[in-house]
Amino acid sequence: MPSADFSVLRPPHRLLVEPCVRRALEEDLGHAGDLTSDLVIPPDRRVQARLVARQPGIVAGSCAAEIAFRLVDEAIELRAGVQDGERARIGAVLLSIDGPARGVLTAERVALNFVGRLSGIATATRALVDAVAGTKARVVCTRKTTPGLRTLEKYAVRCGGGFNHRFGLDDAVLIKDNHIIAAGGIAAAVAGVRAGLGHMAKIEVEVDSLEQLEEVLALGVDTILLDNMRIEHLKRAVEMSAGRAVLEASGGVTLDTVRAIAETGVDYISSGAITHSAPSLDVALDF
Amino acid sequence: MPSADFSVLRPPHRLLVEPCVRRALEEDLGHAGDLTSDLVIPPDRRVQARLVARQPGIVAGSCAAEIAFRLVDEAIELRAGVQDGERARIGAVLLSIDGPARGVLTAERVALNFVGRLSGIATATRALVDAVAGTKARVVCTRKTTPGLRTLEKYAVRCGGGFNHRFGLDDAVLIKDNHIIAAGGIAAAVAGVRAGLGHMAKIEVEVDSLEQLEEVLALGVDTILLDNMRIEHLKRAVEMSAGRAVLEASGGVTLDTVRAIAETGVDYISSGAITHSAPSLDVALDF
Amino acid sequence: MPSADFSVLRPPHRLLVEPCVRRALEEDLGHAGDLTSDLVIPPDRRVQARLVARQPGIVAGSCAAEIAFRLVDEAIELRAGVQDGERARIGAVLLSIDGPARGVLTAERVALNFVGRLSGIATATRALVDAVAGTKARVVCTRKTTPGLRTLEKYAVRCGGGFNHRFGLDDAVLIKDNHIIAAGGIAAAVAGVRAGLGHMAKIEVEVDSLEQLEEVLALGVDTILLDNMRIEHLKRAVEMSAGRAVLEASGGVTLDTVRAIAETGVDYISSGAITHSAPSLDVALDF
Amino acid sequence: MPSADFSVLRPPHRLLVEPCVRRALEEDLGHAGDLTSDLVIPPDRRVQARLVARQPGIVAGSCAAEIAFRLVDEAIELRAGVQDGERARIGAVLLSIDGPARGVLTAERVALNFVGRLSGIATATRALVDAVAGTKARVVCTRKTTPGLRTLEKYAVRCGGGFNHRFGLDDAVLIKDNHIIAAGGIAAAVAGVRAGLGHMAKIEVEVDSLEQLEEVLALGVDTILLDNMRIEHLKRAVEMSAGRAVLEASGGVTLDTVRAIAETGVDYISSGAITHSAPSLDVALDF
Amino acid sequence: MPSADFSVLRPPHRLLVEPCVRRALEEDLGHAGDLTSDLVIPPDRRVQARLVARQPGIVAGSCAAEIAFRLVDEAIELRAGVQDGERARIGAVLLSIDGPARGVLTAERVALNFVGRLSGIATATRALVDAVAGTKARVVCTRKTTPGLRTLEKYAVRCGGGFNHRFGLDDAVLIKDNHIIAAGGIAAAVAGVRAGLGHMAKIEVEVDSLEQLEEVLALGVDTILLDNMRIEHLKRAVEMSAGRAVLEASGGVTLDTVRAIAETGVDYISSGAITHSAPSLDVALDF
Amino acid sequence: MPSADFSVLRPPHRLLVEPCVRRALEEDLGHAGDLTSDLVIPPDRRVQARLVARQPGIVAGSCAAEIAFRLVDEAIELRAGVQDGERARIGAVLLSIDGPARGVLTAERVALNFVGRLSGIATATRALVDAVAGTKARVVCTRKTTPGLRTLEKYAVRCGGGFNHRFGLDDAVLIKDNHIIAAGGIAAAVAGVRAGLGHMAKIEVEVDSLEQLEEVLALGVDTILLDNMRIEHLKRAVEMSAGRAVLEASGGVTLDTVRAIAETGVDYISSGAITHSAPSLDVALDF
Repeated sequence: MPSADFSVLRPPHRLLVEPCVRRALEEDLGHAGDLTSDLVIPPDRRVQARLVARQPGIVAGSCAAEIAFRLVDEAIELRAGVQDGERARIGAVLLSIDGPARGVLTAERVALNFVGRLSGIATATRALVDAVAGTKARVVCTRKTTPGLRTLEKYAVRCGGGFNHRFGLDDAVLIKDNHIIAAGGIAAAVAGVRAGLGHMAKIEVEVDSLEQLEEVLALGVDTILLDNMRIEHLKRAVEMSAGRAVLEASGGVTLDTVRAIAETGVDYISSGAITHSAPSLDVALDF
Repeated sequence: MPSADFSVLRPPHRLLVEPCVRRALEEDLGHAGDLTSDLVIPPDRRVQARLVARQPGIVAGSCAAEIAFRLVDEAIELRAGVQDGERARIGAVLLSIDGPARGVLTAERVALNFVGRLSGIATATRALVDAVAGTKARVVCTRKTTPGLRTLEKYAVRCGGGFNHRFGLDDAVLIKDNHIIAAGGIAAAVAGVRAGLGHMAKIEVEVDSLEQLEEVLALGVDTILLDNMRIEHLKRAVEMSAGRAVLEASGGVTLDTVRAIAETGVDYISSGAITHSAPSLDVALDF
Repeated sequence: MPSADFSVLRPPHRLLVEPCVRRALEEDLGHAGDLTSDLVIPPDRRVQARLVARQPGIVAGSCAAEIAFRLVDEAIELRAGVQDGERARIGAVLLSIDGPARGVLTAERVALNFVGRLSGIATATRALVDAVAGTKARVVCTRKTTPGLRTLEKYAVRCGGGFNHRFGLDDAVLIKDNHIIAAGGIAAAVAGVRAGLGHMAKIEVEVDSLEQLEEVLALGVDTILLDNMRIEHLKRAVEMSAGRAVLEASGGVTLDTVRAIAETGVDYISSGAITHSAPSLDVALDF
Repeated sequence: MPSADFSVLRPPHRLLVEPCVRRALEEDLGHAGDLTSDLVIPPDRRVQARLVARQPGIVAGSCAAEIAFRLVDEAIELRAGVQDGERARIGAVLLSIDGPARGVLTAERVALNFVGRLSGIATATRALVDAVAGTKARVVCTRKTTPGLRTLEKYAVRCGGGFNHRFGLDDAVLIKDNHIIAAGGIAAAVAGVRAGLGHMAKIEVEVDSLEQLEEVLALGVDTILLDNMRIEHLKRAVEMSAGRAVLEASGGVTLDTVRAIAETGVDYISSGAITHSAPSLDVALDF
Repeated sequence: MPSADFSVLRPPHRLLVEPCVRRALEEDLGHAGDLTSDLVIPPDRRVQARLVARQPGIVAGSCAAEIAFRLVDEAIELRAGVQDGERARIGAVLLSIDGPARGVLTAERVALNFVGRLSGIATATRALVDAVAGTKARVVCTRKTTPGLRTLEKYAVRCGGGFNHRFGLDDAVLIKDNHIIAAGGIAAAVAGVRAGLGHMAKIEVEVDSLEQLEEVLALGVDTILLDNMRIEHLKRAVEMSAGRAVLEASGGVTLDTVRAIAETGVDYISSGAITHSAPSLDVALDF
Repeated sequence: MPSADFSVLRPPHRLLVEPCVRRALEEDLGHAGDLTSDLVIPPDRRVQARLVARQPGIVAGSCAAEIAFRLVDEAIELRAGVQDGERARIGAVLLSIDGPARGVLTAERVALNFVGRLSGIATATRALVDAVAGTKARVVCTRKTTPGLRTLEKYAVRCGGGFNHRFGLDDAVLIKDNHIIAAGGIAAAVAGVRAGLGHMAKIEVEVDSLEQLEEVLALGVDTILLDNMRIEHLKRAVEMSAGRAVLEASGGVTLDTVRAIAETGVDYISSGAITHSAPSLDVALDF
């Protein structure tokens, strides 16, 4: 069980996470706050609770949960258990919570929603990462993330041992088929990019055939996305490239297929499913 | 195939959806906007595109997609195809898009991220709804939604034929086991609520045994949540209630179990998985 | 003099109040902040001040005042006197303030504006509540609140011993005459609601005649709003209902009329005037 | 009946009003929007409605109402009737509204809340203005406004024929008793201000005795606030000033006292009550 | 070297500065935060650093730098060196910083950007102020400030010994040539203002000839702006005014011309260049 | 005179610019809006105006000016003259404006502040670009931009013919001396980055000696920043690199030195001064 390396994990800065958590709390508090807790629980009642895993999986998002509890009530004290990036067994404690019962219950659902979703992503990512262990392929994410949660979901991918592709439309160039059509060909598209792009941004071009690959290799871009290619074609692509470009495979990536893809020798394998379709990890708050 | 009834669907008001879509676009545009499209596509190039389903499923979220395209470029014209709440076959067109190529490609991913996620929820909901067809049970959602997207995800549940549970901590009371402990018993908890709650908010109490059910039935609350009960206990609960309270079953609800639960005679069956673990529906933008 | 019961009062969560107070401070600070205090008062001058009532009344909004002082200067120390929901005599101290003179004077007006307005609402509410003492009628508010202050004004109503009607258009259904016309009749309107509404939201229908009451009673809704009915008709309505629905009377509710309305046996009496027309309670900051 | 002079009224710019109206709509729409209208009214039903006065008074805030209707549905068409600053008789139409029934009903309460409150302020202001007609005294407001609504409430005062005092702590200096104590005397306070204040901001000093007045007159400030002085003292103050400073009277200003205060010859009479305690004007939406 | 007088400097309230600093940090953190520091620096590494001047100049904006460091990491400790309004020699320490290395480096650029820009403005202002020393003329700023930074830039002008003109379009009236044309003459324009303006706002009129000056002097406004007049005309204007109005000179104000302008006897000299064209002061963070 | 190539210029998307312009307008409108225009100009007065250059220079920011005028009044019609990226002579018209006089004057200062500042940056950039014409060196910017305006200032650099360095801390890695110290050496720092960075982000390392250059060249990073090196060392660095890394020179870049730096054969020359110290271009609004 690999332990969490926080220089790799790099939890997003609190200034980036807190607005997101605050919005989620406001969404849940609505007009009038937590009617049930406010009406039922005496204001001075304290409680000790634990955020626990009900399924095994890789933890992610405890940082968001901590912010949720502290935003609701600064008097809540937290102690970390299994940390982001680590594997939790059933019943493992991710966070120990000690404080006013009202506040703990008011923050509960928001905290769980973050940890459940992000741990689901980390767990799905780790499954792919484990499946390609021993190859040089790295698992990377896409921009197919939940609207408003990209920074956190990309972090969850790192918690699962994956790496991040670009974070937005602005931090790297990815020329896809539609761009190529609109530009009148790959060479024209790449030339357009070169004429205007700064020197600190990378260029990737998507190809879906070995003919296109040939053309793009000649253009000397940083990365080539091999989209939906058969295993044999991926192997051939690796040979053709011979290290001239970083190669990324995408399309049809599942637990069943990922090992074979990795063994073709590609450098990166990208998966949208690890962010857009990972089931939530079952976590709960126990008293 | 039931057609969409918009008075039931009730798409959330644009004032509630637009901030959410705007945030998603800002998240994707980042510092510098869409480098690729801006560098590769001539500003006056126009395009005709279609948002199509690559999997069969129930559509939800076209309203968000429309807002995304229009926020990016008001000159983009849209024509609805398969509408929210309707079933799409593979290849079905959900939205026809006609406008400047740059704007269409800039908005593409955000639009797809909304439609994919929300249609995934609608599709998972409809699967449960279809499974209980012919019984009186209605499928309802929970507060286990994606932070920041609750209004839209609750709408996706309606698109799938489901009904909505409360939207936040503030619009109804739900007394759970932890509340009962903190209040010193069910009767005390309910009394506390009655002393302070307005007359337009409903009260639900969670029970996990027939003994607790007995006690709560005597208190005359609006709804009783039967949590994780066996089928036989659910049946017995329905008999005991004899219409004195609305009965909602939760826990262990899957496509395999939901029919049997419905046939016990409960009024509502709630599922967190339809929002927190529904895989995204595969949708794409074709030129 | 009834003492404040905080489980009934339920001060709105700080996360809901603070943005409101912050906005008010920004509104008062404008471009350049407090010119007078900054130019006239040495930065190290400290002061002891008291927020006092200059009129007798029911206190509400001290929580907002506290947030105002602390947002302006964390070094300001506060000690509560007469608390929200309690009755203050002339000269009673609501809050003792100890801290840097500049900060205290900068926050003064915003703090007083909140306490004055909210205590005015609580005081007006309590007058109605006292007038119906001994009957079973509860005084409730409406949505006729100050734009942007609804959560706080609804809380002020609770401080005055009143109860809250719905908080927005979204947490309960209230079918009024215009809705009935548009739907083509009461039965159609109620059927429309039943087809789409979740099970945790209540339904109220407004009627203005005994004939309409008859029709609505047969439909089995949760609450019936008897709008602008004469005392005799209200009495007759109570008899007709015989407990089948919760009855709420509205229209023409003043200190002169409210007792007679309550004595008809209705369950709730709603008043817009307690929020939209309550004069501010005179409060001041004394050194 | 004086007609509205829009160069004097100066409705606040839409950029200042729209965020305020949007916030009010979001507050009312809450999580889920207008449940009742969405469930009961067919989406294509149109309606003609009129915003009418149910009490006589001076109109203010139609601009906010118009923004409310248009934000909810751009398809709503509006035609102005009695305009801001004009007197409305019972039944007078302030605004004719024509559009989709859902949108009109969804925006109704927010629009009425703005117009009711602001017209109440204009009406209360006009009563004082009319009472001092023929004297040179102008009625002015204070900073005792509703948190978040100052710009609109100051505008409502202008609609009532009043004038505006400073808008915040930042656009003029007002040295009050507490400032004087903290500065160690009036002369020191004024000297402090002169040393740092820009040349485009005015200075006012509050006095409560003729001795203080004497001292302040010698300092040559722009305006002197005569706080809570008896009529005879106000007369004497006017004689002492002999035009050397603008004189403003405050304290104990009511419809009964304002004429006598005006006849002392003061230039301005300020009232907090016109903003903090004006009852709402009764306005309604008729179909 | 005059020392900083904080009652004159009046640093803007933290509530006005913090949103500005937060926005700058969010702008720099972008999607993913500080990649370099997070990947390279161990989380527990601490550092001692100093914000130093690399050029001589007048310091301004340390308050913003402090907020930047503290927002990034509350554990960072700060100790002030040369303070706002004081003159720094090359190598002078403005701020000593002690804390986690990651946080210090993450906040570095934003802190420097504020201090560099604002100190540049203070330095440029002080150059003019020093040049007019011994005359009665005060140097004042304009509204030609960086969008979004006006409150801070006006403060930087005060740090340089200058005074502030109006802060916005709303806190004083300034009638320029275009207003005069649109109003049909100076007298008409001033009459329009007098009819509607509150008594606590000042009036300034811009003139560009002695004929216009004559006309405006007769109208009795607070301030007259002498725009782009020759030195001899400014002298003549001072004689004509004879103290009847405050006189402000503008146009062609440089270090070469400002002394001669001041010696004409005008009261204020306004410069746009001190805010819109001041080069940044060179400041750096040394370990 | 090179004409503007909009695929290179890439004006930032309106969604990124509008919040910035809106904030600037709100800052100028303050509490009460444009007192002068509202009091002096009849509401129906129309005007034709031109935004003109009073100095020669390169235009940038017209897009922000257009948004300012349209946000203030949608009825204002605009016609482009000299466009962003083009050179304007004295008197050249950048924008023709036709619409209500009030709105035009209300938006004037904000529009000018954007165009003046951004054109100043473009002009300063172009001076450097022209100075290196004929060499292969490209002029690039830094993160030394005005807080809150980075996206627009980076665009202004492109308008001047420059290229953009990274936009924030998040879109590329730049290892500086302090990072190297904290990591315990260059190799360790680079290894740390490689272990965690995604494949689409570039790595740059700052060196200040040829020894360091040697070490970094061996590590194979994308770009090497040669900080404050003498011309002869820069030449030697180019020889040593022999195309193995992109070379960027920084430090001491002025109009006097830039040509010699470029002739050393470096690929990029970065300048902070073009953003942090460029004087504003003099632009004005003529009627």
